[in-house]
Amino acid sequence: MKWRRILAIAMLASLVPAMSTQAADPLPSWNDGPAKMAIIEFVMTTIDTGSPRFVPPQERIAAFDNDGTLWAEQPMYFQLLFALDRVKALAPQHPEWEEKEPFASLLKGDVKGALAGGERAILEIVMASHTGMTTEEFAQTVQAWITSAKHPKTGRLYTEMVYQPMLELLAYLRANGFKPFIVSGGGIEFMRPWVEKVYGIPPEQVIGSSIKTRFEMRDDKPVLVRLPELDFIDDKEGKPVGIQRQIGRRPIAAFGNSDGDLQMLQWTAAGTGRSLCLYVHHTDAEREWAYDRTSPIGRLDKGLEEAKTKGWTVVDMKNDWKRIFAWGP
Amino acid sequence: MKWRRILAIAMLASLVPAMSTQAADPLPSWNDGPAKMAIIEFVMTTIDTGSPRFVPPQERIAAFDNDGTLWAEQPMYFQLLFALDRVKALAPQHPEWEEKEPFASLLKGDVKGALAGGERAILEIVMASHTGMTTEEFAQTVQAWITSAKHPKTGRLYTEMVYQPMLELLAYLRANGFKPFIVSGGGIEFMRPWVEKVYGIPPEQVIGSSIKTRFEMRDDKPVLVRLPELDFIDDKEGKPVGIQRQIGRRPIAAFGNSDGDLQMLQWTAAGTGRSLCLYVHHTDAEREWAYDRTSPIGRLDKGLEEAKTKGWTVVDMKNDWKRIFAWGP
Repeated sequence: MKWRRILAIAMLASLVPAMSTQAADPLPSWNDGPAKMAIIEFVMTTIDTGSPRFVPPQERIAAFDNDGTLWAEQPMYFQLLFALDRVKALAPQHPEWEEKEPFASLLKGDVKGALAGGERAILEIVMASHTGMTTEEFAQTVQAWITSAKHPKTGRLYTEMVYQPMLELLAYLRANGFKPFIVSGGGIEFMRPWVEKVYGIPPEQVIGSSIKTRFEMRDDKPVLVRLPELDFIDDKEGKPVGIQRQIGRRPIAAFGNSDGDLQMLQWTAAGTGRSLCLYVHHTDAEREWAYDRTSPIGRLDKGLEEAKTKGWTVVDMKNDWKRIFAWGP
Repeated sequence: MKWRRILAIAMLASLVPAMSTQAADPLPSWNDGPAKMAIIEFVMTTIDTGSPRFVPPQERIAAFDNDGTLWAEQPMYFQLLFALDRVKALAPQHPEWEEKEPFASLLKGDVKGALAGGERAILEIVMASHTGMTTEEFAQTVQAWITSAKHPKTGRLYTEMVYQPMLELLAYLRANGFKPFIVSGGGIEFMRPWVEKVYGIPPEQVIGSSIKTRFEMRDDKPVLVRLPELDFIDDKEGKPVGIQRQIGRRPIAAFGNSDGDLQMLQWTAAGTGRSLCLYVHHTDAEREWAYDRTSPIGRLDKGLEEAKTKGWTVVDMKNDWKRIFAWGP
């Protein structure tokens, strides 16, 4: 019903001819359907100076979650895989880890055992692998890993695990004057070294979780040292806080895939004008992974309910996406 | 000597003809001299694709202090004047203030007495006036004040207390692909409501001191509530930290006026390529204010030494600026 209504509006607005010409299709990896139509209808009214819903370019802020929204997040967050690799690489400098959990299990190859300690174990692994060096050293380490490490299931570089339809969406929004920001629970400095090349999003448009840093002079040269102390968790209620802190204005479009993105979508939806709130729903066990309400990673439960109630757009990956990865079927 | 060398380089690079044509002068309120020449020479080599010092547009990050660099800061920081006005406006809701310092002195008109309590008194005044409301309510309060309150000495709106030469510099940098950020010790949300209109700098390019906020649902509507708890002080060692946190890459140009900007200039100067570090030196008691090494506000002491040692550019306001304010002599 809703889909038919949107289609009717779109046809009235002469959007369909533009979509049916293959050359003009801005989202070629998206099947024609309600999700694609909602995006195009939103963008075209936003940029239409004759529309009461016109939004000036400087206010066209779009917020994107990263894990599970722009790239995959299974079998576990890629940043955690990075942290595990770093612990292994750093082990020779830490003989005490042989006896100390969660490191001991991890170094024996028992990842599950290492992570059994829950959030506390993860935090210890993250702190051991992400702090104690300068910001520049950390960026170099991330850069070296991201250009060489391979995904355990697909054998692809992690930067090849990005969703082709979302790359097209980013390009489409940018072409229409939108400024996309990443708003991720992942570490801000874990993303910055590669997102500009992969997504076209510059470091200053990345919001994420962070640890504290300290300014120091070393041999008359200033450095920023990464401290083993959390500064900010950019998840759930933290996402609107991070958006306000770093952007200072409300997005008009927000894209997520889990309950961790719910408050960001609520915050976006509560703006004065019209907004686009979109959930990517992982429904394709064959080409990617299928998970939602009970998944420990990327749980989408409350968000799915609220999306129904509020009429937000939900992307059914299996049916809405012609192609998931650039290299995939 | 240095000035002559720069002039010689500039002449070789045919910069001088461009400067001497009045129509082409990008900095008409700047007298021809070493400061103006250093800026133009830096910009022209930065954008020159044939130069070994060429910098691609996305890396042309420029950091500007605000108080004393883009607008005036005497007889005290304008944000403090805002806070004092707010305390007076809020006094009827706080009968307890009549007996409680620093409010009691302030409400009797004794500003000096109120501020005698030093940092602690200032913090109390700031917290009382800046927290307890939503981010939107605070933005509206700032907006109402900045469009009506007048400077105690000049009788001008505070937004008229901006330096015309710096507005020209901002426009010149923007015209050459630079992205200017404000990096101020002042409150981030005190600046955001007006800097886009006054400086052309959007809210997402503002870095400043901040208090913590909390996401809350009020009548099914999400709000961010401003809490009486400091989150970040964007001053001295905090400036490079704030730059890394919000921009995630190093500026190639930095502009300040006090020792509070020194670490930002050091951080900028320590980049791999060439950089422009510039201090505005308040030397004009007649048209503005003259102060430096011993001033409680905007002290410039160590910075002035380091500028000499490192060969940074120092703007002598009295001699380098033809005009200070758009409305002034």
